[in-house]
Amino acid sequence: SDKMKIRKKRWNIRASEMSKNTLNPIRAIVDGMKITPNPEKPMIALSIGDPTVFGNLPTDDKVLQAMKDAIDSHKYNGYAPSVGYQKSREVVASFYSCPEAPLEAKDVILTSGCSQAIELAINVLCNPGQNILVPCPGFSLYKTLAVSLGIDVKHYNLLPERSWEIDLRHLERLIDEKTACIIVNNPSNPCGSVYSKEHLQDVLAVASRNCIPILADEIYGDMVFPEYTFHSMAPLSRDVPILSCGGLAKRWLVPGWRMGWILIQDRNQAFGPEIREGLVRLSQRILGACTIVQGALESILNNTPQEFYHDTVSFLKSNSEICFSALSSIPGLTPVRPSGAMYLMVGIEIENFPEFENDVEFTERLVTEQSVFCLPATAFEYPNYFRIVVTVPEDMMAEACGRIREFCQEHYKPHRQDTNGLDQ
Amino acid sequence: SDKMKIRKKRWNIRASEMSKNTLNPIRAIVDGMKITPNPEKPMIALSIGDPTVFGNLPTDDKVLQAMKDAIDSHKYNGYAPSVGYQKSREVVASFYSCPEAPLEAKDVILTSGCSQAIELAINVLCNPGQNILVPCPGFSLYKTLAVSLGIDVKHYNLLPERSWEIDLRHLERLIDEKTACIIVNNPSNPCGSVYSKEHLQDVLAVASRNCIPILADEIYGDMVFPEYTFHSMAPLSRDVPILSCGGLAKRWLVPGWRMGWILIQDRNQAFGPEIREGLVRLSQRILGACTIVQGALESILNNTPQEFYHDTVSFLKSNSEICFSALSSIPGLTPVRPSGAMYLMVGIEIENFPEFENDVEFTERLVTEQSVFCLPATAFEYPNYFRIVVTVPEDMMAEACGRIREFCQEHYKPHRQDTNGLDQ
Ligand SMILES: Cc1ncc(COP(=O)(O)O)c(C=O)c1O
Ligand SMILES: Cc1ncc(COP(=O)(O)O)c(C=O)c1O
Repeated sequence: SDKMKIRKKRWNIRASEMSKNTLNPIRAIVDGMKITPNPEKPMIALSIGDPTVFGNLPTDDKVLQAMKDAIDSHKYNGYAPSVGYQKSREVVASFYSCPEAPLEAKDVILTSGCSQAIELAINVLCNPGQNILVPCPGFSLYKTLAVSLGIDVKHYNLLPERSWEIDLRHLERLIDEKTACIIVNNPSNPCGSVYSKEHLQDVLAVASRNCIPILADEIYGDMVFPEYTFHSMAPLSRDVPILSCGGLAKRWLVPGWRMGWILIQDRNQAFGPEIREGLVRLSQRILGACTIVQGALESILNNTPQEFYHDTVSFLKSNSEICFSALSSIPGLTPVRPSGAMYLMVGIEIENFPEFENDVEFTERLVTEQSVFCLPATAFEYPNYFRIVVTVPEDMMAEACGRIREFCQEHYKPHRQDTNGLDQ
Repeated sequence: SDKMKIRKKRWNIRASEMSKNTLNPIRAIVDGMKITPNPEKPMIALSIGDPTVFGNLPTDDKVLQAMKDAIDSHKYNGYAPSVGYQKSREVVASFYSCPEAPLEAKDVILTSGCSQAIELAINVLCNPGQNILVPCPGFSLYKTLAVSLGIDVKHYNLLPERSWEIDLRHLERLIDEKTACIIVNNPSNPCGSVYSKEHLQDVLAVASRNCIPILADEIYGDMVFPEYTFHSMAPLSRDVPILSCGGLAKRWLVPGWRMGWILIQDRNQAFGPEIREGLVRLSQRILGACTIVQGALESILNNTPQEFYHDTVSFLKSNSEICFSALSSIPGLTPVRPSGAMYLMVGIEIENFPEFENDVEFTERLVTEQSVFCLPATAFEYPNYFRIVVTVPEDMMAEACGRIREFCQEHYKPHRQDTNGLDQ
């Protein structure tokens, strides 16, 4: 390195703008938090959107067997076409096909997780300088991907008082001539909401009036509590072109396997061949999903017992009920009852917790004192809420709620005080 | 659609510029060719860079067992960190670590195939408007990825008469202030060349003098014939920062599994934390490799018997010898002897085949008449050569060479004729 000084040139390697513009708000916020649990209480993480971490929600044995059969067949070690094996695409098509929105293999693109499905969908629909409309609160990947590609993001509001329905007026006001697509996430992360058919029709009417395609993130499709019904968007519209993104991650409880898909729903031919060809071209950049998982897909989709799906959803419902009713009775908190997915949002009456500036401080102290970690909803651009993941074992859920109650009881000071938050 | 006419707005959805700029030259060329085999001869495809298609090169049973064990452990179904499990990164690090270029887990990023490794590496090192230097002939993905990101590509020549060594003067002349990295592919697709230590040191000297980092595509690392030695670039330089890209696809014969990696080789700290952080951020866009394959990695790397590697390489050598010596004696063809990987390039004395304009026409007619398909090297920006894949079963290899001989005998017309290629 002494020798370097003599040289005219110097090493001067900078990371690209794109890498600097790839921002993950969850990481940014969590990394900035002091997460030091109370050594006297075992940590309970209600923060991780991975249903497998506690071991209480294993995937079905048939799913694992399908993988082993795919390996034993020796048929799935080579390259698949970049959009996936024809047979696997066929299987996904017929699993999701319905009379109002029929699907064939050519309408399915297999991807490396739903994340890549969303990446390809945004990438094919939007140019730098255009904008996309995303839900607020909403899953942060949409913004991460869009911003890194130079695409602007506008947030449309969800209404907690209407079980997180979309504020349709706000949505429509945001549309301008540069709007390339509307992202709708149903069932929702982080809200756990499930939209009615009527509400989805209203959203589709906005898209139709303004001729804006929809990216439907339906990764939690069919993960709805028994008294609700999941409606996929495509069958509800004749004219709005939809890229529906999904995958095995959540419903089959194998997020690590990175198996996702795009369903191209285009009854009105508004996408035309151009979007299809664009998706195929983009899929050739890195190729898609692991061929073993692709090979297992037929059996996974066709042979997983109904009971498995039912048990998962029952557990999620009962756990979210435990959580919702426990938190409902805590002064200072306003949980919103979920109807699907694996999440529940809790409002903090932050003015009644004078010691805390915001949801980040609130959740930080909840860890320090009670060893319970919930994600502050600032990570979803929705301050003064926090998100609870309801996949943890029942007893942990109950214990966590008890600790949250204790925490709130200690810090809740209604009738805004003018003291600057001294301890009691 | 009649109703549409009344509306002010119309559906007008265009595929993005990026999707239009993602061009795959192999597809573009092959799709434009008339590939109609002679119905009287069974087709032999020497075109597909997938060693698994003929079934004669299965992966090792231990590799398959490692996957089944990973499934049975129930430990690898959840999300891994976006750069891969710590343990799996550790395993790759120690597999490739050597005293001159030590590696730790933090230096390894697991990716969805070597393709994603290359994508992340280009993406972190280059901004739009900069350029990268790529080999000619060379693997087409480099250009596909770069162009789609607005990065310029300059081709440096390889010298067939020097077993495809890099034309160092040409390489250095191409460097300008906008050059962000040099891609070196060793062993090479499509050449099957393996560089000597001395040649690699010469290349590194160019990089060092000009302070340009290297992207070393070493996916065929260690796939060299017994009398040659594979030298990874990193141990040969103290100062040049290198992103070495590799994966399971070729050496372990499982390209569909989409398991790749980047080794960050930076003894001189020229990348610094910025490139590492950039790679981590980029990895969070779609997450990386399937967790089952990640979980199997330890056993795959540590328990695959040496015999397996040896048998693969012996087969490739003996098959490429069969091919090379058969084609060497055919007037009008000039095969270049390979020393590794799974390919062999064959020059066409196109002026002595007056019926054919170029390599595309030559290979097209070779299919029509002899049902043998080889990729015209125009797909690698190297006209009037074609590439042969030497992973086909031995008897097919021999049969294919016989048919190529017959084809050439029929069409070879030395001493340039002024007739316009009438049949003899
Ligand atoms: C709403 C939503 N969409 C997409 C994804 C990504 O799914 P995958 O793991 O298949 O990439 C997630 C994961 O948490 C999610 O919550
Ligand atoms: C030189 C070279 N690099 C990279 C790759 C891509 O490897 P993977 O299949 O792991 O993405 C290939 C595949 O053919 C190749 O030939």
